[in-house]
Amino acid sequence: MIVVMSVSAVEQDIQQVVSAIEARGLSALRMPGGDRIAIGIPSAIPPDLREPLFQALSVLPGVQHVAHVSRPYKLASREFHGADTIVDVKGVRFGGRQIQMITGPCSVESYDQMRAAAMAARAAGATVLRGGAFKPRTSPYAFQGLQEEGLKILQRVGRENGLVTISEVMQPDLVALVAGHVDILQIGARNMQNFPLLIEAGKSGHPVMLKRGPSATLDEFLLAAEYLLHHNNSKVLLCERGVHPLDRSYTRNTLDLNAVPVLKEISHLPVIADPSHGTGISRYVPAMALAAVAAGADGIMVEMHPNPREALSDGAQSLTPGQLQSLMSRLRAVAAAVGRSA
Amino acid sequence: MIVVMSVSAVEQDIQQVVSAIEARGLSALRMPGGDRIAIGIPSAIPPDLREPLFQALSVLPGVQHVAHVSRPYKLASREFHGADTIVDVKGVRFGGRQIQMITGPCSVESYDQMRAAAMAARAAGATVLRGGAFKPRTSPYAFQGLQEEGLKILQRVGRENGLVTISEVMQPDLVALVAGHVDILQIGARNMQNFPLLIEAGKSGHPVMLKRGPSATLDEFLLAAEYLLHHNNSKVLLCERGVHPLDRSYTRNTLDLNAVPVLKEISHLPVIADPSHGTGISRYVPAMALAAVAAGADGIMVEMHPNPREALSDGAQSLTPGQLQSLMSRLRAVAAAVGRSA
Amino acid sequence: MIVVMSVSAVEQDIQQVVSAIEARGLSALRMPGGDRIAIGIPSAIPPDLREPLFQALSVLPGVQHVAHVSRPYKLASREFHGADTIVDVKGVRFGGRQIQMITGPCSVESYDQMRAAAMAARAAGATVLRGGAFKPRTSPYAFQGLQEEGLKILQRVGRENGLVTISEVMQPDLVALVAGHVDILQIGARNMQNFPLLIEAGKSGHPVMLKRGPSATLDEFLLAAEYLLHHNNSKVLLCERGVHPLDRSYTRNTLDLNAVPVLKEISHLPVIADPSHGTGISRYVPAMALAAVAAGADGIMVEMHPNPREALSDGAQSLTPGQLQSLMSRLRAVAAAVGRSA
Amino acid sequence: MIVVMSVSAVEQDIQQVVSAIEARGLSALRMPGGDRIAIGIPSAIPPDLREPLFQALSVLPGVQHVAHVSRPYKLASREFHGADTIVDVKGVRFGGRQIQMITGPCSVESYDQMRAAAMAARAAGATVLRGGAFKPRTSPYAFQGLQEEGLKILQRVGRENGLVTISEVMQPDLVALVAGHVDILQIGARNMQNFPLLIEAGKSGHPVMLKRGPSATLDEFLLAAEYLLHHNNSKVLLCERGVHPLDRSYTRNTLDLNAVPVLKEISHLPVIADPSHGTGISRYVPAMALAAVAAGADGIMVEMHPNPREALSDGAQSLTPGQLQSLMSRLRAVAAAVGRSA
Repeated sequence: MIVVMSVSAVEQDIQQVVSAIEARGLSALRMPGGDRIAIGIPSAIPPDLREPLFQALSVLPGVQHVAHVSRPYKLASREFHGADTIVDVKGVRFGGRQIQMITGPCSVESYDQMRAAAMAARAAGATVLRGGAFKPRTSPYAFQGLQEEGLKILQRVGRENGLVTISEVMQPDLVALVAGHVDILQIGARNMQNFPLLIEAGKSGHPVMLKRGPSATLDEFLLAAEYLLHHNNSKVLLCERGVHPLDRSYTRNTLDLNAVPVLKEISHLPVIADPSHGTGISRYVPAMALAAVAAGADGIMVEMHPNPREALSDGAQSLTPGQLQSLMSRLRAVAAAVGRSA
Repeated sequence: MIVVMSVSAVEQDIQQVVSAIEARGLSALRMPGGDRIAIGIPSAIPPDLREPLFQALSVLPGVQHVAHVSRPYKLASREFHGADTIVDVKGVRFGGRQIQMITGPCSVESYDQMRAAAMAARAAGATVLRGGAFKPRTSPYAFQGLQEEGLKILQRVGRENGLVTISEVMQPDLVALVAGHVDILQIGARNMQNFPLLIEAGKSGHPVMLKRGPSATLDEFLLAAEYLLHHNNSKVLLCERGVHPLDRSYTRNTLDLNAVPVLKEISHLPVIADPSHGTGISRYVPAMALAAVAAGADGIMVEMHPNPREALSDGAQSLTPGQLQSLMSRLRAVAAAVGRSA
Repeated sequence: MIVVMSVSAVEQDIQQVVSAIEARGLSALRMPGGDRIAIGIPSAIPPDLREPLFQALSVLPGVQHVAHVSRPYKLASREFHGADTIVDVKGVRFGGRQIQMITGPCSVESYDQMRAAAMAARAAGATVLRGGAFKPRTSPYAFQGLQEEGLKILQRVGRENGLVTISEVMQPDLVALVAGHVDILQIGARNMQNFPLLIEAGKSGHPVMLKRGPSATLDEFLLAAEYLLHHNNSKVLLCERGVHPLDRSYTRNTLDLNAVPVLKEISHLPVIADPSHGTGISRYVPAMALAAVAAGADGIMVEMHPNPREALSDGAQSLTPGQLQSLMSRLRAVAAAVGRSA
Repeated sequence: MIVVMSVSAVEQDIQQVVSAIEARGLSALRMPGGDRIAIGIPSAIPPDLREPLFQALSVLPGVQHVAHVSRPYKLASREFHGADTIVDVKGVRFGGRQIQMITGPCSVESYDQMRAAAMAARAAGATVLRGGAFKPRTSPYAFQGLQEEGLKILQRVGRENGLVTISEVMQPDLVALVAGHVDILQIGARNMQNFPLLIEAGKSGHPVMLKRGPSATLDEFLLAAEYLLHHNNSKVLLCERGVHPLDRSYTRNTLDLNAVPVLKEISHLPVIADPSHGTGISRYVPAMALAAVAAGADGIMVEMHPNPREALSDGAQSLTPGQLQSLMSRLRAVAAAVGRSA
C-alpha cells in the first residue's frame, strides 16, 4: 500500500500516517519525491487488515490518496499456485488439453425436451448437460422454472445419456438440494456477490461454476472465487458471460474475451466462456464460441434447445441441434489450430 | 411490440410472423414502409407472454429486430398509480413534503458505538438509524458483521432514542429474523436481482428499501421493485446508490442523480439517494447530498460514525457527528429552497 | 511510480528494473514486502518521461504491474495553484460567488430566432448567450449549421442585448474565425481529445469552455485542459455534460455530478454543468440544473429555444422561455441556500 | 418511428401527434392497444427529417416516448448493399478470403527503426506497414510525433519493402498532406466523430481506416462511416480497437469482439481488429489476435517495434519481431480452421 501525501502536507501529517501504520504492527517507509512525499508499507498486510487500513489512512489530514499495490485475492492467484488447476468432474476434466462443451436448454421444461437435448449434445460431442430448474428472471411475470421437478429430470437424463450435469442454485438453503441432483453447481452472474450463497456453495465441496457479474471487475470476480476457495472448495470454474454493454441495440451483453487470457495468467482456475449470454443472439454465438477457444478458454457453454422457437426462455440465443453440430466441427478445427482438442 | 422485417424479407416471412402473433391470441398490424415492412402488435401483451413472444419472434426468418414499445413493469409504474405513494413507518413518512434523513454507521460494532451514533443522529434531526449486522463484503477476509447480536443492539438503541431502524438482509431464510428486529429491511445493491430474497421480502409485508444494482437499468430496477409489489408489499422505497463508475480514480461509484427525476416521473414510489456509497469519500458526501435534495429525492442516506478512523468498515465514506450536523443545516436550507422540509 | 514485482521475480529482474530507472537519471528505492518486492521512484519524474518510463518498465521480466502514484496533470491541478481561478469575460466572472447562466438554442437558425432567445435569456437573468454555428452532427443527414453566417448573427444579437456569447469551434483552422466573432470558444465533448484543436485554441488566448468527453476519465479531462494551459491560455472553463449512460431508455446521457465537487477540489478552474445534454429531455433539465448548483457548479448551461417544437436540432432538450424564467427563480433560491447568487 | 402515448393521453394529444407527422408529408397509423395507443409512421422517413421529427414528437403533450425502428445509416448498411465490399489498396485486398496483417511501430522514430520494422513485418508475412507521424497524445508532455518528416520516412520504407502504408491524420487541413505520402489514411478512435475530418477524408477518395471511438455505439460508428461514404468514398475499413473498460487494472481497453460478427452482418465493409490497443499489454495481444480471426475479422492490426523497451510510445503493447513471427504462424493455422488464409 502506498499513501501519497498532498503537496501541502506538513511533517505532523506525515507523522500521523506513519503512526497509524506502525500502530497496526506494520512498518512505514518514507519516499520523499520532488513535490511531495509518499509513504510505502513494505511488509505484507494481513488480508483482514487490508480494507480497514486503507479506509483509515484515506481520511487522515494531508493524505491525497491511498493506492493498493498488491491484489486482494490470494488463493485464486497463480502467484501462490503456479500450476493449472484441473477440475475433474466424473472424468470430465476442465483446465487440461481438452476443451469441454457444456450445452443444453436455458430451462428444463420436460423430460422429452431434455432427452432430445441430451441426445443432441452427446451426438455433437458435448460432455456436460445444462438446464435451469430454479430460474433467476428479471421480471416476476416470467417463467420461474420447474424447480425440484426440473432437477430430477436433469439428473435422470444426464445419467441415461452419460453426461455430467450442471444447474443453477440461487439461495444458500437450496445448495444441498441442488448438489444432491446435479454434478456442478452454477452460481449465476446476478449472484456473483451473493455471499451467503458463496459460503454455502464453498462448504458443500461440490464443483462450482461461478459466473462473472455483468459489471464486476476481475478483482471482484476473483474475490468471489476466493470465498469458495476460502471455504475449502477447490473445484471452481470461472465463467465469463458478458459484461454490461455500451448499448443493447445489437447484443444483450458484451462478451469480454480480454478476460480469458488475463484470467489464465493471473489465476490457476479453469476459464469457461458463455457466448450465448455474451451475445444474446443465436446467430452470433458460433463466431464468439470460436473466438473464445482461440483466446484460450478451457470450456464453452452454449444454450441449445431442440426447438428454440418454442422455448419458454432464452429462445433467441439458443442454437438448434443442427447448429450445435456444425459449430462443434468448426470448434474442433480451431481447437486443433491452437494445440487443444474438443 | 414492433417486429421490423429486413429489406429482403418475403411474404412468407411476414406470414410466419403474423401467424406466430395470432397463435398467441394477439392481433398483428402490418405497417408497410418505404423499404421494408414492420408488424405491430396493437393489443396489450399479457406480462407472462412478453419475453417468450419477444424471443420467439426474434429468431424467425426475415426479422431484422424486435422492439418493445411498452415498459415491462406495471405495479411500480405511475401510469397505473397516479398518486405518490407515501410509505409510513411508525410515523416517519417517506414520499411526502418532508425529506427523511437516514444515518448511522456502516456496521453495528457495539452498543456504545450505536448509542453514540443514535444520539448524534437525533441531535442532527435524522429520523432513521442505520447499522449493518449482516455485511456483504467483497473480500472473504473483511469483517462480516455481528449478525443477530448486531440486530439486537440496533433494535435496542433505536427504541431508546426514538428512531426508526433499517438494516440489510442478505438471504431469504433470514428475512423473518431481520424483520423481527428492525423497522425497514434493506436489500443491497448486490442483491437487487436476488429473486428468492425479493420474493421473501415481498411476502413479509415489512417495509423494504431496495438499492439499485451498480449496473442495473431503471427498467431492471423497477422490475425488481415489481417483485416486491407483486407479492403484495406496497411499502417499497427505491434507493439510488451509485452506478459503476467510468474510473475509480476519484470516487468509488457514480451517483446517478438523473435517476431521481426520472424515477419520480415514471414511478409513484419514494426515492432515496445514498451519496456515501455514491461517492465513497466523505468529503464529497455533503455536496452530493444537497444535490440529491435539489434533484427531488425524498430521503437521504449517509453513513456517519462516531469515530470514522476506527470504523471496522467504510470509514472513508463516513461523516463525523459534527459533519452531519453541519450538513443537516445546509440541507434544510436547500430543502426549503425547493419547497420541502427536512 | 511503483513497480510491483511478481512473487517469482529473481534478483536479476530487480536489478534490471533498478538499472532502467537509474539510466533515466532517477533514483530507485527497494521496498521488500512479505511475498514480493516493490520498487519505488521517489524523485519527481519529468512530465515527458512519465509515459515512456511506464511503458518501458511494464515489459521488463518479473514485473507484475506498474502503478502511477501521482496525477499526470500539473497546470490544471489545485496543488500547484491553490486559489480558485476566476475567468473574467467582459465582466462576466466565472468561478466567483455568482453562478452564471449560459443559455440559448442549440443552433443559430435566424436573426429573429436568436433575438427572441436573447431577449428571453436576458429577461431571465442569464449572462451568456449560446448558439451553434458549426454543428457536430452524428448523422451526415442532419442539419449542419449556418456556419459563418450563424456566427455573425450570434455576434450581432449578443451585442444588441448586452450578452456575452459562446459558440463551438470544431477544427483548428477555424479557431481564428470563431474567436473573431464570439467571446468564448466552446470545444465540444466529441472533440475533447482533438489535440490540434486544443493546441490552436490554447494559442489563441481566447476564453475556452472545454466539455468533457462522454467516456473521459477526470484525468483525461484535466489533461485536455492541460493542453490549453500549456499553450499559455489560462481562461479555461471545464464543463461536465453527461457521460455515456448505462442505458438510453430514459435519458441520453448520465450527468455525472460527482465530477463537480471532485473537480472543484482537484483543480482551480471554474466548473460548468450542462443538464440539457446531461439528460437530453427538457422536463428533467430543471431538477438537474438545481442539483448542479447544489453540488457546487460555477455555471449552468441549458438549451432554450423560443419555440422548441420547431427547433432544427435538440428540440427535445430545450426549455421554453417560460420554463427558463421559472427555473431561474428556483435556481436563485438554491444558490442562496448554498451561499451563492445567480 | 413509433410514438407511444401515455395511458392518460387524450384524443387531442393524439390528434396533435398525427398532425405533426402529416405536416411533414408522412402518414400516421393509429395502433390502439390495451392501455394506450401507439402511432406508427409506416412510410420511409427522409434521412434529414429523422432527427428533427424525433425531437419534435418527443415534446408533444401525452407522448410517453418515441422509438426509432429503423437504423439511421443507409450507405454503410448491408441491407442496401448485399455483397461484401472489397477494398483493394495496391493489390492488398481487404474483405476477401485473405486476412491482412497490418503492423509496425506506434510512432515513426527514425529511418533505421522503420526499416527494421518493415523487414520484420515482411518476413512475418504482413502486407501493411503502420507508423504514426502525427500522434494524438493524451498528455501535452508526451512525444507528439515526427510529423511530415515521419510521413516521408514511412513512405520511403514502404516503397523499399513493397508494403502498403497507413498513418493517422488528425485534422482536416492535413488530409491532403498525409494522403500524398501514405496509402491508407487512419482516423483514430478519438476522432471518430471529428466531422470536419470525416468530410475531408471522404472527399479525398483515399482509402480510410476508421477506428471506433471508445464509447461509440455501433450505430454511431456506422454513421461516422456514413460520412465517408456520403462524400463518395467507398474505400472504408472499419476498425474495432477496444471500448472503455470496466476497470483498467489489467487491460487498457476491452476489445469488443462481439462487434466483429455484428458488423459483418449489418454492414458490407471490411472489419479490422486492433488487439494492441484493445488490450494495451503485449502479452495478451496474440490470444486476442487469434480470437479476432476466429470471430471473423478481415484484418488484424498489431503494434510491433524492433525494440519495444526503447519505444517512444506504446512500448508496453508492442510485440517484438520474434513475437510477431510466432503469432503469424499460429494465426495462419486459425485462419485455415475458419476457411480463410493469412
